[in-house]
Parts: sequence; structure tokens; C-alpha cells
Amino acid sequence: MTEGLDPLKVPRGLAGVSIADTRISKSDADGSLIYRGYPISEIASNAGFEETAYLILNGKLPTKSELEPFTRAIRERTDVGAIVFGIMRELGKEAHPIDVIRTAVSALGSLDAEVSITGKQRSLEAKMSVLAANCHRVPRGEAPRTSRKELRFSDNLLQMLTAKEATEYERWVFERVLMLYLEHDMNASSFTVRVVASTLADPYAAATAGLASLKGPLHGGANEAAMEMLLRVGDPAKASEFLQAMFKEGKKVMGFGHRVYKEFDPRARLCKEYLREMLKRRGGDDRLFRLCDAIETEMWEKKRIPSNLDYYAAPIFYSLGIEVPLYTPIFAASRIFGWMAHYNEQVEDNKLIRPDSTYVGPSGLKYTPIEKR
Amino acid sequence: MTEGLDPLKVPRGLAGVSIADTRISKSDADGSLIYRGYPISEIASNAGFEETAYLILNGKLPTKSELEPFTRAIRERTDVGAIVFGIMRELGKEAHPIDVIRTAVSALGSLDAEVSITGKQRSLEAKMSVLAANCHRVPRGEAPRTSRKELRFSDNLLQMLTAKEATEYERWVFERVLMLYLEHDMNASSFTVRVVASTLADPYAAATAGLASLKGPLHGGANEAAMEMLLRVGDPAKASEFLQAMFKEGKKVMGFGHRVYKEFDPRARLCKEYLREMLKRRGGDDRLFRLCDAIETEMWEKKRIPSNLDYYAAPIFYSLGIEVPLYTPIFAASRIFGWMAHYNEQVEDNKLIRPDSTYVGPSGLKYTPIEKR
Repeated sequence: MTEGLDPLKVPRGLAGVSIADTRISKSDADGSLIYRGYPISEIASNAGFEETAYLILNGKLPTKSELEPFTRAIRERTDVGAIVFGIMRELGKEAHPIDVIRTAVSALGSLDAEVSITGKQRSLEAKMSVLAANCHRVPRGEAPRTSRKELRFSDNLLQMLTAKEATEYERWVFERVLMLYLEHDMNASSFTVRVVASTLADPYAAATAGLASLKGPLHGGANEAAMEMLLRVGDPAKASEFLQAMFKEGKKVMGFGHRVYKEFDPRARLCKEYLREMLKRRGGDDRLFRLCDAIETEMWEKKRIPSNLDYYAAPIFYSLGIEVPLYTPIFAASRIFGWMAHYNEQVEDNKLIRPDSTYVGPSGLKYTPIEKR
Repeated sequence: MTEGLDPLKVPRGLAGVSIADTRISKSDADGSLIYRGYPISEIASNAGFEETAYLILNGKLPTKSELEPFTRAIRERTDVGAIVFGIMRELGKEAHPIDVIRTAVSALGSLDAEVSITGKQRSLEAKMSVLAANCHRVPRGEAPRTSRKELRFSDNLLQMLTAKEATEYERWVFERVLMLYLEHDMNASSFTVRVVASTLADPYAAATAGLASLKGPLHGGANEAAMEMLLRVGDPAKASEFLQAMFKEGKKVMGFGHRVYKEFDPRARLCKEYLREMLKRRGGDDRLFRLCDAIETEMWEKKRIPSNLDYYAAPIFYSLGIEVPLYTPIFAASRIFGWMAHYNEQVEDNKLIRPDSTYVGPSGLKYTPIEKR
């Protein structure tokens, strides 16, 4: 029936199908991850959040005279405005945080007065932090926590999330976790962003769609689910018994396994050390670390499944006093920079992403009047 | 660097790449379009909107005892609620209608009390009509126009759009246009809906993403752009002069060309007849029809590019007294049924849509302190 060539059939879910050349980042099965050519360990050990965000967006580490205006452009755009907070409040105390952020970002697509694509992107990046910190409290009727413009990006987000003082090391660790969440090649939300960007829709529309994909349990919510699991087990001595029950029931253990990393997730390794050191420096209870380690060790011994970033990011957030429903919003507040890098890469050399399908249904049917069916 | 197989490289924009088997609809280069096996002309000549929507969603034409509860399920869910109208109003009089609908649908993801997936889908389908009719007026401070529950789907949408009486034939034509917009295989917004559905996000999230993709000029807005062009030319005698200027400047003529249809768009053919007949029955001025025909004839003679559905849907909407900024929202109010059919087909046999990419950037770079860059 089709004129011309039949469509090319590819694996389901586009698994292993390269849909674009990219220069942004690359993860590999052997446990390597690079950001614009830099191994993730180089970045985590040496850079700051703003530097890393600049690198991912621009393809090079900034000079001082490049970093300063970039940092300022974000700092100047953190005012979300009363209308958006009002809309968030209207969604009510039962609202899912991702629904709240998605609706707020969608509304900003109308309300934000930015003209240029770059201005819109800096505005989104700036405001996403404020939305992440407020997406759970504002719908419950609590007062918004706002930006402190003198602070660095990660310190500012942390103070909005917890309203507590954190030590220098704790703030350093939180910044690392954000940097590790910033970008991860062609994941489901970045792909969604690229699909919408390919229609030449604006950055707000593309980010709204990225957030929509985070609502699905197959992409978002993993760090929250991992923390809920850790809290449920509670005691390192119960790790083995818990896992045996999970294996028996054939249930998925949260925070383990990754589409790319089969040996280890390099980000999980880094976060494991941060968690250990953070609890050690506090000098108090390290039970949460021992629990994580016990489950991880047994998962590897019994199933050869490594932990992933969400597994160790979650107990770090917990130890910093951040409420569990905010973990995926924090992910989004960092990943927005990666999304915008994908948006730009898509638009700079664009072709509408519009696949084909294979029709396998009937044809040539005749309408029969409803009385005769 | 990659372990295992290199990713499969496919044409840019996934052009000609079949990403799924489908039983919903199929368009073909030769000018055929089928809905669940029925040629589009069979459907347009015989069916009503609700029947067609049921067919696309369920894969078969309904019996009377199937159609009645389906129609009722939609009718009962048209109350959008004061909170959503309030949010729409907050977006302000300059708001883009698609931004308004997208934000309203995203908000409904929190506010709607539906529990089942089917209930959420009927609710979205019911409310999208109300949002389409109000997305331009409510942000400008005008009172919402609401549903008249005794009316059929298309009559109800038309009365909310125009607040005027229409003849039986006009209402029949409007219903046809909605039926022709209802579904069109793997277009950019339906694909976006499927990408988000594949994360197992809820229907509101998926529809929000579909609407996000309609914001882009490469996917949405074509019927509005076609009408603006027709109004600019105005006079059939000026068609030739207008096209010569467009060809000379290398500009795209709106409402022409289609990714699939190379000879003719079967939906445009139907709508051309509807427009001709509608103006004839009115007995007045048929200048708009003659203008459309003149441009179409010359586009085919000079460029061999056929008109598409948007080209003839637009003057029909215009002749019905519908404001131009509502044309793409009307598309969305009909296409939501197609989107939900794609949502269901994706989820029923799901695999996360998560492609790969080919990294072509540098690697092994070393961090240098900012002072040394």
C-alpha cells in the first residue's frame, strides 16, 4: 500500500538506536561518564556547580570573565513572582510536587517577560530551584522560601530546601550531588525535551514536557523510592532478611541497576564516599551508611546488580534534612541545565523528530449503520 | 569505548523509522487515510464525532449500548471548575492560547478527582473542548463560556466557540472537520504523548507534553498561519501575483505540502467540498472559496505541491465566525482523542522509549584551574 520504501523497523523503545550525534556527555557500560570530554571524577573533585553548568551548556570551562556574567544572569532571575506562587497554592495540599513544578513552568511560559532564548533559559534555570524548594510547601499553604542572591547556586537551593545552617563540608557534598545529577546523555526526559525542541517550541514548553516525563515511575521518583525503602528497612542487621523477601517475591529493589552501567555507576561511587565522610565528620550515628553498604554488598554478591546514583543521593539528602518528596524536584532543578544543553544542540542543527509506525490493523472496512451492529 | 554493540544509526528526525506497530490509523502517500481500518471517506460520510472517537479509542464502531455510556461519560465531565478558570485568567491578556491550555491541563493533573485511567481520559477529552473555547477569552478577562450538556460534542464546542446559532449544514461541516482532525498516525504530538506515556506517567502529564509540542511552529499553528495568509491576499485576482512574490523570495506557502501525502490530502479534498457547499447554501459571497481555489490551483500547476487539511479547515472555521487564535486549540480539542488512543496503545504493551546517541565530542580532558584558562 505504501509508495516508496517501507519504514525501517528498529528495536522497541528505541533501545540502542542512536537518534543524534551529541557533544554534551557520554556514559559507558564500563562505568565511565564524561561531561563535554571531562571525566566526571575530574569535575566532581575540582569544579563548582556554576562552572559545570557553564561547561555543559557551552562546551568549555569558563574563564573568570565568562563565569561571572553567567552566574549573575541566573542570580538576577530567581524571582518567581506572586502569580506563580498563587497558582502553585491553588493546586492544593494533596498536589504531587512534579505536577506543581510542571504547572508552574508551563505558566512561566506565559508570564515570564524574557525575550531571547538565552534569557528564557537562564530564567528557567534560576526559577526551577525556587520551584523545587517550594513545590511541596506552597500548595500546603506555607509561605514561599525565596532566593538569597548573595549565595552560590547550590548553597542557595540548600537554604531554601531546609532553612537550616549546614557545615562547609555538607554544602560541598550537596553541590557535588547536584553536579552529578546535572546531565546524563540521552535519558527519557532529555529525549522528551529534544522531541519538543524539534518543533521549535520555546524552552518553557520543552521543559514542561521534560517534567511531564518525570511524572512516570519508569523515569522519575527513583531517589524518593530508594529512601522510602531505606527507611522501611531501617537497620543494617535486617538488610539480608529484607533482600531475601524481595528476591522471593520477585520485586525490584529501588536504587539498583542502570540501563548503561553494568559494573558500577561512577556517580554512586562518589556519593557513597561523600555519605561516609559526611557522617564520619559529624561523629555521630553512621547507621544509615552501614545500612546502604549492607544492602549494596548483598545485591552485588547475590545478583551482580550495582547501586546507582539515586541510591546514594537519597541518604545524602536525608542526612541534610531534606524532606523526601523534594528529591525528584531537586533532580529537576539540576537537570534543567542538561535539558537546555540538549534543547540548544537539537535546535542548532534541527530536523523535526517525527518517526513512522507500522500499521498492522485491518483495512478496507465498510461502515455499517449503528442499528445493524 | 563502548562495551557491546555500537548503537544503530538511523535517519535524522527518525524519518522513515518505524518505532511501533499500530492499529490506530494509517496515512499513505497515495492519498489514503484509514481510521481503524475504515477509509476516512466512509467515516466522514456516515459517522458522527462521538462514534468516530469511540472507534479510534476502542478499535471498533460502537453499538448503541456502547455509544450511550461513552457519550454520557464525556458529557458528565465538562465542568472545568473555577480554580482552573482562575489560573487561566492569571496568565494575562497577552497569553498564547496553547500556553493557556497546556497550563490548564497540567493543573488538572493535580485538581481533577478522577481515579481510573479511563475516567481521567474521558475527563481530559470533555474539558479540552471547554479549555479550547476559553483559552483566548478568559485570559483577557471575559467570562467563561461553559458546556451545554444536552448538546452533541461538536455542537457544544461550536456554541462555546462562537455563541452564535449555526445552520444544520454548518454544524454538520464543523463536526466533519473535527472528525478529520481527530487522529493522524505518528505525528510529532502523538509521538510526544507516547514518549511520556512510556514512562507510565498519567494521561494529564502525557497530554501536557503533547500540547507542549503544539507550541512549536513546525507542528502547531499551521491552520492559523494559513488563514492569516488568506486574509492578507484577500482577493482571488491577486493570488497569482502573491504566489510569484512568495516563490521569488523562496518563502513557504502556508497550508501546502505534507510529509506523507504527495498527490493530495484526502482530508483537504473533503473540506474543500464542504467549504464550497457551505458558502453556496448561504447564497452570498463565495470569494473566500475562489481565493482558496485560485492559490491551490496555481500551487499545483507551478510546484506540484498539494494543499493540506489546515488549508481548508481554516476558511471553514473563519466562515463559521471562529476567531483565528482558536484554530490550533480546536485541533487539540479533537486530537486529544487520538492522543489517548496512542497513550493506551503504548501503555498496553509498554517499553520505556529511551534512545541512544552517538558521542562525537572530545574525551580524556583534564581540569585546569580557572586562573589558568
